[in-house]
Amino acid sequence: MCLSGFFLIDCGEGTQMQLRKFKIKFQRINHIFISHLHGDHYFGLMGLLSSMHLLGRQNELHLYAPAPLKEIIDIQLKYSDTILNYPLVFHPLNFDSKKILFEDDLVKVSSFPLFHRIPTCGFLFEEKPKNKSIIKEKIKEYQISLAAIQSIREGNDFVTNNGQIIPNSELTYPQAHLRKYAYCSDTRYNEKLLEYVSNVDLLYHEATFLHELQNRAEITFHSTAKEAGIFASKANAKQLIIGHFSARYPDLNLLLAEAINYFPNTLLAQEGQSYLIHSNRI
Amino acid sequence: MCLSGFFLIDCGEGTQMQLRKFKIKFQRINHIFISHLHGDHYFGLMGLLSSMHLLGRQNELHLYAPAPLKEIIDIQLKYSDTILNYPLVFHPLNFDSKKILFEDDLVKVSSFPLFHRIPTCGFLFEEKPKNKSIIKEKIKEYQISLAAIQSIREGNDFVTNNGQIIPNSELTYPQAHLRKYAYCSDTRYNEKLLEYVSNVDLLYHEATFLHELQNRAEITFHSTAKEAGIFASKANAKQLIIGHFSARYPDLNLLLAEAINYFPNTLLAQEGQSYLIHSNRI
Repeated sequence: MCLSGFFLIDCGEGTQMQLRKFKIKFQRINHIFISHLHGDHYFGLMGLLSSMHLLGRQNELHLYAPAPLKEIIDIQLKYSDTILNYPLVFHPLNFDSKKILFEDDLVKVSSFPLFHRIPTCGFLFEEKPKNKSIIKEKIKEYQISLAAIQSIREGNDFVTNNGQIIPNSELTYPQAHLRKYAYCSDTRYNEKLLEYVSNVDLLYHEATFLHELQNRAEITFHSTAKEAGIFASKANAKQLIIGHFSARYPDLNLLLAEAINYFPNTLLAQEGQSYLIHSNRI
Repeated sequence: MCLSGFFLIDCGEGTQMQLRKFKIKFQRINHIFISHLHGDHYFGLMGLLSSMHLLGRQNELHLYAPAPLKEIIDIQLKYSDTILNYPLVFHPLNFDSKKILFEDDLVKVSSFPLFHRIPTCGFLFEEKPKNKSIIKEKIKEYQISLAAIQSIREGNDFVTNNGQIIPNSELTYPQAHLRKYAYCSDTRYNEKLLEYVSNVDLLYHEATFLHELQNRAEITFHSTAKEAGIFASKANAKQLIIGHFSARYPDLNLLLAEAINYFPNTLLAQEGQSYLIHSNRI
């Protein structure tokens, strides 16, 4: 996904088997984000950490998760008499406000609090601006020095020898759109989340129930497909993926149809499926 | 398997998925035995316990496992804010000597210490004698009363009105063979185990390596296929199943062939396979 290796968000039981099945090299995962401590979101983590160890991993692995997960991992390592071959760097999540978890040259990852039965975070992945591409003809036209070129690529205007200011927009190609992806699971419908995820290219929002069970969604701190659709619309998202479906629905198209009523560009989260977020880079 | 429901021995990651795949009703499991706290033997347990809870289980579940597993389970229930719907009765294993863990009218289950890197138990399942079947003609011949019949079925001789002692063997059919099954994983080859498993009908013994890696088996507290074969032979077992194979062996027939050299009636443990132990009951 980026310089920093793959990101994994949540890790239910059997995740390592699914990664193998879909031929994803799990040693390339360098950052794991665990939203909360319900088992369907982390019971596969110990197995994955152990397999990475047994297969000789030595690279750092960063884990962003609720603080108690460190205790849960540590006692299991202790009683199995295991010292991991690789550094496992634990970053406890904060549930009060949006926090930057990780940043490199390409991407910034933040957490933000969701509304669930136990402390839970969503995650926001934001592409970072790259240096701009300069229009070659302009270098000759304005006799731009090498030193000035870097400054222009960083977004600055150019001042010619005779003091004329050439705006950056005349010297560079328009920058590509910077993509954003937000993950919201598990959570009640709550418009306070809009501030974190507005204008994302892709929104994953849980849709555990059909809206006829809205009362049950409320009680269990989950959302309905209708709510996910309304939320995506209010967030001005470009695309919505719904998931985390209750096992009571053998036909997921009912959930999809309900969400689409409120947000047409909706897809079902399906096992092993890749979802590309297209860039408009020039 | 018996009045007491199914027994499950060890519970690696994905056990609940495999149980579903092979259509085994996991709510009928009432007793779970965990040999030791290496992940491949228990990382699927939390998921199974949670699913039993979410699917509305109310019946007692008995868990026989190393004591620290209780701590591992309890902190995970605590941080997921879960109180199980059903009583989970924890029985800590003893690693010093053979202990009876469970007994009902049909079966007795014991644990015995294995030789592994961390405290580990094997398990022995012994069928218990049933009441004997009386030969109907003898009831008339000796004018046996109803009260006396029960005593004879329990194995006692019969005394006639004139004081004649009729031996039980004349009054009843010979009793069927009482079956025994022993599970030995993970362990080094060690003949001290013979006392616990001698004359079993079926022996499961690990065979992690081929004997060319006997040194590696020794270091990692595992066994080779040759050792499993020799052990089964010395134990006078009727049949051997080998399992717990290192992932380095794509062709398990090599391991099978090696064990068969020392114990011909050997089978490979294969996912989803049933292994019947035939009774000779009349």
